[in-house]
Amino acid sequence: MAKCIRCGKPASVHLEGLHFCSDCFKIHVEKEFEEGIEGHAVGSRLVNAQEKVLVAVSGGKDSMVLWYLMHKHNFNIIPVHLNLHYGFFSEKSLEVVKAFSEKIGQEVRIFSVKDDFGIDMEGVFKKAKNRPRCGVCGTIKRYLINKIALDLKVDAIATGHNLDDGASNIFKAILNWDFETLSRNSPLSPPYKDKLVKRIKPLYRLSDAELKAYADMMQIDYTSEVCPYKIGSVTLSKSKEVLNEINEEFRGIKRTFYYGYLRNRDIFKKEEAELKECKICGMPTSSEDGICSFCKLTKDIENEKEI
Amino acid sequence: MAKCIRCGKPASVHLEGLHFCSDCFKIHVEKEFEEGIEGHAVGSRLVNAQEKVLVAVSGGKDSMVLWYLMHKHNFNIIPVHLNLHYGFFSEKSLEVVKAFSEKIGQEVRIFSVKDDFGIDMEGVFKKAKNRPRCGVCGTIKRYLINKIALDLKVDAIATGHNLDDGASNIFKAILNWDFETLSRNSPLSPPYKDKLVKRIKPLYRLSDAELKAYADMMQIDYTSEVCPYKIGSVTLSKSKEVLNEINEEFRGIKRTFYYGYLRNRDIFKKEEAELKECKICGMPTSSEDGICSFCKLTKDIENEKEI
Repeated sequence: MAKCIRCGKPASVHLEGLHFCSDCFKIHVEKEFEEGIEGHAVGSRLVNAQEKVLVAVSGGKDSMVLWYLMHKHNFNIIPVHLNLHYGFFSEKSLEVVKAFSEKIGQEVRIFSVKDDFGIDMEGVFKKAKNRPRCGVCGTIKRYLINKIALDLKVDAIATGHNLDDGASNIFKAILNWDFETLSRNSPLSPPYKDKLVKRIKPLYRLSDAELKAYADMMQIDYTSEVCPYKIGSVTLSKSKEVLNEINEEFRGIKRTFYYGYLRNRDIFKKEEAELKECKICGMPTSSEDGICSFCKLTKDIENEKEI
Repeated sequence: MAKCIRCGKPASVHLEGLHFCSDCFKIHVEKEFEEGIEGHAVGSRLVNAQEKVLVAVSGGKDSMVLWYLMHKHNFNIIPVHLNLHYGFFSEKSLEVVKAFSEKIGQEVRIFSVKDDFGIDMEGVFKKAKNRPRCGVCGTIKRYLINKIALDLKVDAIATGHNLDDGASNIFKAILNWDFETLSRNSPLSPPYKDKLVKRIKPLYRLSDAELKAYADMMQIDYTSEVCPYKIGSVTLSKSKEVLNEINEEFRGIKRTFYYGYLRNRDIFKKEEAELKECKICGMPTSSEDGICSFCKLTKDIENEKEI
């Protein structure tokens, strides 16, 4: 029987060739979270205890663990859930988030894309039918969460992006020499003037598998429902799969690759594109026509062909 | 039935989702070879018609096709075969090379590591038992071929390294952020003073599969024997396999990745290590103790631990 690599007791968690007993696995996950907050391999700390942080909670395992860990470590957080109204998927998400809020006694702020921002996601998808839906939804979520963060006057937005998200994104980008992604992907995106709030990804050192095991072990509720709009937008999932297969072949290469990227990402920096203010909403945009991608998607504007 | 992408006739060659009739496949291979000579994506031409080129021919499919194509395109070449004395493997290689020489009526210069250079490969492997044998053999072959090239007063050494060799090497290097490899790998290595002859890899745009299909179609003899010392040195083959699997998943990504690397490889350049002259043989070396890797392997020197 495999023994825990930390204490030598019988192991109960087996991941990527490493074995832990459940006590040591908890210590391991918290240590990686703390090293994430400290910004190991990133070069600077993601967030300080004094800062006020909006935690974006979708109800999935990653954001629920993030909420739990930020709460447990006494960060000054405001959990925020954005209801997308994707039928049963969104109902389930809302339910999980509300239940966890009650369980730990911390209020969660619920916003609705429809009721609070007047956006009909179904309509947006129809209008932007040639664009991958995950990308469209991502643009809208990022924009609205930033807007909420500005209103709430927080110092940072924390999201549940994990090691597999970061590594597979960079893996795909490097296969295609996509300098746009390679120059800008980081667990720490600095703020821009008084328009864009700092964004951080404290779970960038923890894998899908580690977060799932931890959530189950700590009995943190989460929804495993797959978004009904995800079908047909599977490219990133595919590169996650491929990278995990390589990681089976060359044990540990996923971390070596991603942390190596984080340490060396400056080599991909090109001259910063000059940002303008969006003609419609005033937010920063690098778009040539001066209209930001959010307004292109949601406002009834002429240049639909460019979408 | 699949049709040739060039002429629309029934296709007989099917590679990476592309279909060719045999005539158009020959044109395709020669075009890639010519674009290789012109240095597409590399940034400068590999070799001119006036230059004298040593072609290193092992007897495998890649070097035999290289010999054939360089001969067919009237380059000023000297085919050179280095006998390593690896038993049946080497006997078979020698036989193939001699037969092809007779067939096309072009002399091949045969050298023996043992008789011409006094090196017993078996003894070297025993001495350097902690180093991968392919690496040890590669160091010795590169050194001796360069020595032969200097004696023959050629302008360049051409080797049969193909797209899979280059792409998998860079793929492995980028997963590990191995800047040493990333900064120096190219189909064109410039000469260094009067010590290192220019090295070129004209087949860097043609895959394993393309070269095999072409050799078979043109009835170019080659040996498919696997080197008896290859066992246990399979890391690069493994990364070739993995990259080909990814190429099945994301069609064409192997070329996109490798050509993208070639166009952007300057970002990996670090300050050049200062080269010294080897204390034993006088060849350039970046080694701290001033003894080149060839002399460390083959001369009976003290610091065996460093090997």
